[in-house]
Amino acid sequence: MTKMNRRDFLKAAGSAVGAAALTTTLSGCAQHNASNIAPSRQGRSVMGLVSEKLDIVRVAFIGVGQRGFGHVKRMSQIEGTRIVAICDTHDEVLTRSVNYLVEQGVEAPSVYKGAELAYQDMLARDDIDIVIISTPWKWHAPMAIDTMNSNKHAFVEVPLALSVEEMWDIVDTAERTQRHCMMMENVNYGRDELMVLNMVRQGLFGELLHGEAAYIHELRWQMKEVEHKTGSWRTDWHTKRNGNLYPTHGLGPVSQYMNINRGDRFDYLTSMSSPSLGRTAYAKREFAPEHQRNQAKYIAGDMNTTMIKTVQGRSIMVQHDTTTPRPYSRHNLIQGTNGVFAGFPNRIALEQGGDKSFHEWDYDMQSWYDKYDHPLWLRMGEEAQRNGGHGGMDFLMFWRMIYCLRNGEPLDQDVYDGAAWSVISPLSAQSVANRSAAIDIPDFTRGAWQQGKPLGIIGA
Amino acid sequence: MTKMNRRDFLKAAGSAVGAAALTTTLSGCAQHNASNIAPSRQGRSVMGLVSEKLDIVRVAFIGVGQRGFGHVKRMSQIEGTRIVAICDTHDEVLTRSVNYLVEQGVEAPSVYKGAELAYQDMLARDDIDIVIISTPWKWHAPMAIDTMNSNKHAFVEVPLALSVEEMWDIVDTAERTQRHCMMMENVNYGRDELMVLNMVRQGLFGELLHGEAAYIHELRWQMKEVEHKTGSWRTDWHTKRNGNLYPTHGLGPVSQYMNINRGDRFDYLTSMSSPSLGRTAYAKREFAPEHQRNQAKYIAGDMNTTMIKTVQGRSIMVQHDTTTPRPYSRHNLIQGTNGVFAGFPNRIALEQGGDKSFHEWDYDMQSWYDKYDHPLWLRMGEEAQRNGGHGGMDFLMFWRMIYCLRNGEPLDQDVYDGAAWSVISPLSAQSVANRSAAIDIPDFTRGAWQQGKPLGIIGA
Repeated sequence: MTKMNRRDFLKAAGSAVGAAALTTTLSGCAQHNASNIAPSRQGRSVMGLVSEKLDIVRVAFIGVGQRGFGHVKRMSQIEGTRIVAICDTHDEVLTRSVNYLVEQGVEAPSVYKGAELAYQDMLARDDIDIVIISTPWKWHAPMAIDTMNSNKHAFVEVPLALSVEEMWDIVDTAERTQRHCMMMENVNYGRDELMVLNMVRQGLFGELLHGEAAYIHELRWQMKEVEHKTGSWRTDWHTKRNGNLYPTHGLGPVSQYMNINRGDRFDYLTSMSSPSLGRTAYAKREFAPEHQRNQAKYIAGDMNTTMIKTVQGRSIMVQHDTTTPRPYSRHNLIQGTNGVFAGFPNRIALEQGGDKSFHEWDYDMQSWYDKYDHPLWLRMGEEAQRNGGHGGMDFLMFWRMIYCLRNGEPLDQDVYDGAAWSVISPLSAQSVANRSAAIDIPDFTRGAWQQGKPLGIIGA
Repeated sequence: MTKMNRRDFLKAAGSAVGAAALTTTLSGCAQHNASNIAPSRQGRSVMGLVSEKLDIVRVAFIGVGQRGFGHVKRMSQIEGTRIVAICDTHDEVLTRSVNYLVEQGVEAPSVYKGAELAYQDMLARDDIDIVIISTPWKWHAPMAIDTMNSNKHAFVEVPLALSVEEMWDIVDTAERTQRHCMMMENVNYGRDELMVLNMVRQGLFGELLHGEAAYIHELRWQMKEVEHKTGSWRTDWHTKRNGNLYPTHGLGPVSQYMNINRGDRFDYLTSMSSPSLGRTAYAKREFAPEHQRNQAKYIAGDMNTTMIKTVQGRSIMVQHDTTTPRPYSRHNLIQGTNGVFAGFPNRIALEQGGDKSFHEWDYDMQSWYDKYDHPLWLRMGEEAQRNGGHGGMDFLMFWRMIYCLRNGEPLDQDVYDGAAWSVISPLSAQSVANRSAAIDIPDFTRGAWQQGKPLGIIGA
């Protein structure tokens, strides 16, 4: 088992950034970038990977903070699981999770704490099947790789990783170790997203043409989390990268509608940012002049718009804005020759099969839920909503993960999905830095996308 | 006066297309295109052009078909005008306009008919001040140029012209002849657009960041107009150009919010089209296999998405879709550091100055109309709505045009506006043909945009 020590980790993270920067500086016309050339394959494709059936899934957690604690709570509700160990660098949140589980009448998990690499001691155990990783973004890649190298399946919070090089390292490790590595894109399990997937599969929109995705969610208040919590590390990304910092919540479902890596794949993207003004203004307003928030240079454009072209010719418009005061949206739009579904608010317009003329949006979802609610939702939706987590999507995701592991089925999302959706972040920044040049998107499947089976009726 | 005969006209149109194609083939990396280099200046800037006050404005019309007839009717309602002459190649519509005016108790205009170049005989008169041009798109440039060369002001339907070369020819003619050439973008005079302009001028949205514009309007039914009417010539553009065929209705207002050519200007664009499927499917469904509509190859992607970057750093997302069955939208979105206004449906979210938290859209426009209705609307809105034309915007536009001409004021939109907004069409097609390469947008003002005065309270 290969451990990645701190020095190796920092070196890898640094060189990934460095290589990307060098390539975009040298190539005036940034199409067909050198940084996007696939490294040599190390293993075998894990598309459709089926692992040995597990009777009881033994779970470990790296990171039990704001996101991870929710995961602990929901996992404890899933049948057929046992929470064996948890790890975090903050003692208080470790105690919180242990107390919660004990109160549930569950055996207290082992606890790993203190140093940043304490998780590696946990990975040394041989009584863990899967590891749930909910840590600051820069730790996702090294922890996922270490997890798979220790012969365990990795389940990683979004984004899967931060650079093209990290994506390839993760993909290649999964192929070499033949372990699952699933990015936990919970939005794929929302009731609306499942319904739209069901509608697409039934051909309701005709031939697909175009999609729109976004993460528009005002999060300037996170800048007030300075010592601890999400804002303490997430704010810094606004000083490091000008592009789409967080592409997957809207893009995941749209990619599934379009069978990305399952008959189609991302070809290239072009990206453009607005000026970066909102966070500087917020810091000025909310903090004293000498406060560290007012010393930072915020470079991420407040609104980033990216366009993705697929090999089959479809277009996807993806936006990111966590700064502007405006209502939340993931867009969740899919358009075909027969009409359009869009979210936020939910609305649909169809030429054939609609309740109204397509000239007017139909906002009344009830009849559509009645006709097109996804079988997974029909089966598990009520229980999911009871157990909570973003309206039930978090529980539903875990339920499916454990179901597939216990029944020896492929997971709904694989390592290629996580890599494709997440690589939009570094590539959008490359495009923004190069006058919105078209940037090729790597084919992490190395050709297998053409044979990939469409993600159909999940869990039907 | 230089007449453009048919041969010259066809040569100019052909070479414009040819030159553009050649440039994009030779330049692998299509940034800083040769085709966008400005020709030598022929006259003086017409930014802020003020022409001699006219007591009575003597009006002629080229084209009195579907659009032109509406213009005739509305012009006949405007004080201080006299309709002197009308021209069309279809006798029936000429008769329709003459009969209408006579029924209004107005002196019948002179009539020019028959040949495609009959309009040049009308332009030979010296008793015409302005010419309203409402003809198929390919005629806009030659007619506008001929009009100015005959010492008359030209008012042109959208788009102003079809190629970069035509735009420069029109701009240079206007500068040489010191005549007005205004593209009649009526949407600038909509109540909502005027209100949003007023809000922007009052700083309601803070520092501007981003805008969104569109022409999403299902028009497949126009394919049934085969011999006459708009579809008989407009459909063909879907076989000739893959890009944004019609950018100005949404883009005009957003450009005015952003002071384009008045302190900012378009820098470059990148464009991407979805597949082209909807018109082929419609033709198959609606026409016999041997019908000409089923012999055509429709190349225009059903949904085109273009991103424009301005020199001041703002981004504008522009869409075009006249094929997909979905509700009408021009987007009409403007975003700043303090919040967002969007249209279709109208909604607003503000951090400071809103009636609700910015986490929820405010759809209730009445209080916003009460506070921010544009002075022009307050003064003329009722009369405009009574006279009709897209809710009053058509009348308001004519009222302003004539007001400015009679009072010796600059027109609200000048030739540089028409050129900038219209050139998005050919440039988007260049980008689409070059893997969404960034395409420089010419500065038709030749630097004067930096001194341009913001279009403030129109008609206040």
